[in-house]
Amino acid sequence: MPVYTCTAAQGSLTSDLKARLAAEITRIHADINHVPPAYVNVVFSDLPADSVFAGGRPATPLILTGWVRRGHPQEEATRLALELSSATARISGVDESRIMVVLQDSPARSAVEGGHVLPEPGEEREWLRRTEA
Amino acid sequence: MPVYTCTAAQGSLTSDLKARLAAEITRIHADINHVPPAYVNVVFSDLPADSVFAGGRPATPLILTGWVRRGHPQEEATRLALELSSATARISGVDESRIMVVLQDSPARSAVEGGHVLPEPGEEREWLRRTEA
Amino acid sequence: MPVYTCTAAQGSLTSDLKARLAAEITRIHADINHVPPAYVNVVFSDLPADSVFAGGRPATPLILTGWVRRGHPQEEATRLALELSSATARISGVDESRIMVVLQDSPARSAVEGGHVLPEPGEEREWLRRTEA
Repeated sequence: MPVYTCTAAQGSLTSDLKARLAAEITRIHADINHVPPAYVNVVFSDLPADSVFAGGRPATPLILTGWVRRGHPQEEATRLALELSSATARISGVDESRIMVVLQDSPARSAVEGGHVLPEPGEEREWLRRTEA
Repeated sequence: MPVYTCTAAQGSLTSDLKARLAAEITRIHADINHVPPAYVNVVFSDLPADSVFAGGRPATPLILTGWVRRGHPQEEATRLALELSSATARISGVDESRIMVVLQDSPARSAVEGGHVLPEPGEEREWLRRTEA
Repeated sequence: MPVYTCTAAQGSLTSDLKARLAAEITRIHADINHVPPAYVNVVFSDLPADSVFAGGRPATPLILTGWVRRGHPQEEATRLALELSSATARISGVDESRIMVVLQDSPARSAVEGGHVLPEPGEEREWLRRTEA
């Protein structure tokens, strides 16, 4: 259901680190937002060094943006962002000062996965029963 | 006015399939959201196989995210997402179980195209008359 | 705090133009949204010519999308989008008719930078005092 995109300068993350990050982002999201891990999508966008800036100068931030269904309690979104930030720092070795996590949302009914309109937060179980039947 | 980004592992889509998908996404959006086709933007982001995950494991989802102006009726956004999902499956040959479509929005007045602030949904005709004069 | 992504067909922007655009986007955002320039992130995504479409046909739009914290007055978001559009045209040499700027937002409390939940608009100064202590 969610889609995470991790953007960084080329060379910031090896293939192995991407795999470990994807696994941990998936675990954290599934745990906090009550989604089966199989429904968590994570992609990595590596950009050339001349294409990444902070403060108007070349830099090496690691930017993790996620789309989630609207309607989760705000305190859970905050906790999700905080846990994603610290996990990303821990696994990638990138100092947390250079890590940015942003969660965006839109209505579950504006998203379709596997041909099915997504369920509202809290209605995952019934949705899974119906769509995986 | 809208911006669609189709993200997939490299090799998922040939140049020909991208062109056909862009044409069909444009047709569907123009039809449902009452926008002239010329104002529909579609881009494709091909990522290396080691950069695309679902369920915390390497995978080959096809993720179509779209930005649209806020204020369209929810049932139309849902219909748009459903039609984009089935059209993407049909054209790409990717099984719909691996396709995800997400529509996000923000106020039309937070977007500028061709130097002009975008019109609210329903005010496209007057906007076009004014900006294309 | 904000994250800007500038997407264009490969070859649209030289390294030098990217650097100048990043500097100007940073300056404009810092000025209008009261954020220290160091906290403005800008990345560029260059896509192959066969991956960029407008009106369902290959094209060369320049698409600048930005994520900002929710809660800035709408008139400031509109002014920000307009200034970003004209600055991008001026610096890149791309005709403004082919430039699209979209600002999206979500709650500041859904974003974490440097390990700290972002401040609401208007509370930047106190946040900086606390986090940079």
